Amino acid sequence: MIIKNGWIVVDYIRNYRDGAVVIEDDKIVDVGPTEDVLRRHSGSGHDVIDARDKIVIPGLVNSHTHISMTLLRGYADDLPLQEWLEKWIWPFEANLTGEDIELGALLGALESIRFGTTTVYSMYHYHPGHNEASGLIKAGLRGVIGIAIFHWSRDKNIKMFWDAMGRWHGRDGLIKVSLGPHAPYTVDPETWMRLPEILNEANEKYGDRGRVIISSHIAEDWRENELIRDKFNVDIPGGSIFRYLEKFNILSGDFLAAHCIHLNQVDLDLIHKYSVGVAHNPVANLKLGMGFADTPKMLEKGIRVSLGTDGPASNNTLDMFETMKFAALINKPIKRDPSVTPANIVFRMATEYGALNLGYNDLGILKPGYKADVVILDRRKPHLTPVYDIYSHLVYAARSMDVETVIINGRIVYDGGFVNTSLDDVISRVENRVYELLEKVGKGD
Amino acid sequence: MIIKNGWIVVDYIRNYRDGAVVIEDDKIVDVGPTEDVLRRHSGSGHDVIDARDKIVIPGLVNSHTHISMTLLRGYADDLPLQEWLEKWIWPFEANLTGEDIELGALLGALESIRFGTTTVYSMYHYHPGHNEASGLIKAGLRGVIGIAIFHWSRDKNIKMFWDAMGRWHGRDGLIKVSLGPHAPYTVDPETWMRLPEILNEANEKYGDRGRVIISSHIAEDWRENELIRDKFNVDIPGGSIFRYLEKFNILSGDFLAAHCIHLNQVDLDLIHKYSVGVAHNPVANLKLGMGFADTPKMLEKGIRVSLGTDGPASNNTLDMFETMKFAALINKPIKRDPSVTPANIVFRMATEYGALNLGYNDLGILKPGYKADVVILDRRKPHLTPVYDIYSHLVYAARSMDVETVIINGRIVYDGGFVNTSLDDVISRVENRVYELLEKVGKGD
Repeated sequence: MIIKNGWIVVDYIRNYRDGAVVIEDDKIVDVGPTEDVLRRHSGSGHDVIDARDKIVIPGLVNSHTHISMTLLRGYADDLPLQEWLEKWIWPFEANLTGEDIELGALLGALESIRFGTTTVYSMYHYHPGHNEASGLIKAGLRGVIGIAIFHWSRDKNIKMFWDAMGRWHGRDGLIKVSLGPHAPYTVDPETWMRLPEILNEANEKYGDRGRVIISSHIAEDWRENELIRDKFNVDIPGGSIFRYLEKFNILSGDFLAAHCIHLNQVDLDLIHKYSVGVAHNPVANLKLGMGFADTPKMLEKGIRVSLGTDGPASNNTLDMFETMKFAALINKPIKRDPSVTPANIVFRMATEYGALNLGYNDLGILKPGYKADVVILDRRKPHLTPVYDIYSHLVYAARSMDVETVIINGRIVYDGGFVNTSLDDVISRVENRVYELLEKVGKGD
Repeated sequence: MIIKNGWIVVDYIRNYRDGAVVIEDDKIVDVGPTEDVLRRHSGSGHDVIDARDKIVIPGLVNSHTHISMTLLRGYADDLPLQEWLEKWIWPFEANLTGEDIELGALLGALESIRFGTTTVYSMYHYHPGHNEASGLIKAGLRGVIGIAIFHWSRDKNIKMFWDAMGRWHGRDGLIKVSLGPHAPYTVDPETWMRLPEILNEANEKYGDRGRVIISSHIAEDWRENELIRDKFNVDIPGGSIFRYLEKFNILSGDFLAAHCIHLNQVDLDLIHKYSVGVAHNPVANLKLGMGFADTPKMLEKGIRVSLGTDGPASNNTLDMFETMKFAALINKPIKRDPSVTPANIVFRMATEYGALNLGYNDLGILKPGYKADVVILDRRKPHLTPVYDIYSHLVYAARSMDVETVIINGRIVYDGGFVNTSLDDVISRVENRVYELLEKVGKGD
């Protein structure tokens, strides 16, 4: 496939105002000015997409969500965290079957694709046959499935992790499985101690199908250290959660820490030292009242900060374009400096850094040899006129719904309509099922 | 016209899950459950729009922008305020003709309409024949045109105000003209002193064509009081900018203060005492690094806080759906309380409060006798499934591009395409003209 005559955004610096991309199978094989690319591939018999007046970008990477929570989108908003979890979210989730989780993931996958996201990291509850992986595959979305591990169900969860690795890791070239210890306040020290060995073993056995990573919620709540002390009766040395985690030999480039709002200098130094990745979720951090992560400081240190939407119950969308704008803006007034987190760096966070943080070193850039995850946006719109700077447009002006065509792993999955799935069918199934679930939790009409 | 079978959102509290709205000429004449409305209007011969699976809302009110600055969208981002203004914005603006301002306003009007906004307040430079009013009328958008008044050109500006009143106030039932003293640091005390009389005279002469209001940028920059002292050698009593303005007898329900970020308790008390309206612009306040307005405190006091996008050079869109989400979220972490600025109140800010702040008492609610500014959104989308709470959906999940049909003053102006204007023609004209302007300011290729 050749996409020609488009404004090709290779990465956060390089772009061709009139460029072309060539895709063969699941890979990008050539990128450059249209004229040069067409000369190199004349008579190649490729399908051609004319991208005149379009912007062509690497697909966005949503590096932290709980995708099946689409089923709970808008179910409970504007509530204090504990009331939200205990009275609303958990009773609802307790009723979810494997089929529900697949359905929620499928709905979230359609939303992600529609909005130009081609890879998600999603941590949720796993069921062997029907789960988030099976939902993503139905839509054709690339995803890393984090098998949630909690203190109170750790043995069962770890068993599920191995089951998921065997069944889903590498499936269809789209799915990876990862270890998902929920958070330091929900996972006890003994369990943390066991995780490095499990991760190493998983990489030894299955690493050839894709690098296995570990991800956890870290420093989301300002009360976290206190919660850990109370629950597990342990000391958080110097108030540094990363000093605490360091003891478990779990920090590395394969560790992805979601949130990282409430950190001290020791934490920042350790994140940098161990090359830990950070998944920043600005919209959910605001909506739950958690705070502002200091991304300018992290970026300045050279930390790979990627972006995530978090779950659709605390956002309430999977819109990475919106997330880019929030990420670009929220620290400017805090620093009283509009130059922090400039547009092109935010674009890098949503693409290249996202891919690296999920353990892909061949994703997130439109580069020969990289995975063919490509998104085409229409720029013949009032809100995208005129064009001075393409990165400004992608971060500050483009809307997720400007997305016109989505290619994942070399296959078109959206092109004005969803290629693999009937949207009407999914919506009807969700509406019917949600009605039943509300009856079960006693909140039906 | 009858819009039936839709989810009719009357205002921030009342909504009908299966409702109908009846429009005659420029007014709403009936609203209620579909069955009741159809019974009352059977055989009336109205055109019918079937709004099954749609959401029907009052058009959004953008209560502060500089609409012609669409021409400068993305022209200069991520820069410190003074450098941004002096090196980039002002040299560009110095070259704008009346035709440019009309063209920029027309482009911004198309974007506004596409995104479900039916009324804007726009303060900008006025030229008699071609200006923002003429641009809005071409697109069919309702708007209040603030004639900017500066210290250094006050007599010319006031003359322009009277010219604009005579020519445009009440035009086509769409346009109002307002007094736009730019800011306390750009307007001297002597000029402020003259404004109440001008406002009164304007209302006496032209008030029957629509209430005339006055609007100014207040407390946008934390350095404002200092700037005023330096420039005009006056004292800001107790550091309260509203105490300073009070001396000029200009504070009233007809005064709309844009921004209001840096206020003290005296300011808040005076805003409340005089029933001054506040136009909150969260996106631009973040992008320029200005700060977080304390909207929860204002709302708690009963102050009418409406929403604005500010100009497309500091946002970079005119997207009121995005503005609603930012307004709902940014104060939650500051207050460490997710329950502040809940979704339905934010919706009120974007509709009813916007209308009141612009001097309309028959706009912003779907109510018999009110102006027929109505927006229809499609909710058969992944990101709007399922539906639990309609206000949550409008503020946290709906995208501006879910808008399907826009009715202003009883006339359909958007219905998948723009009724009054050729978008392709406007885009081409803007692209060509911007190329010329860049040559003039020495930034052409």
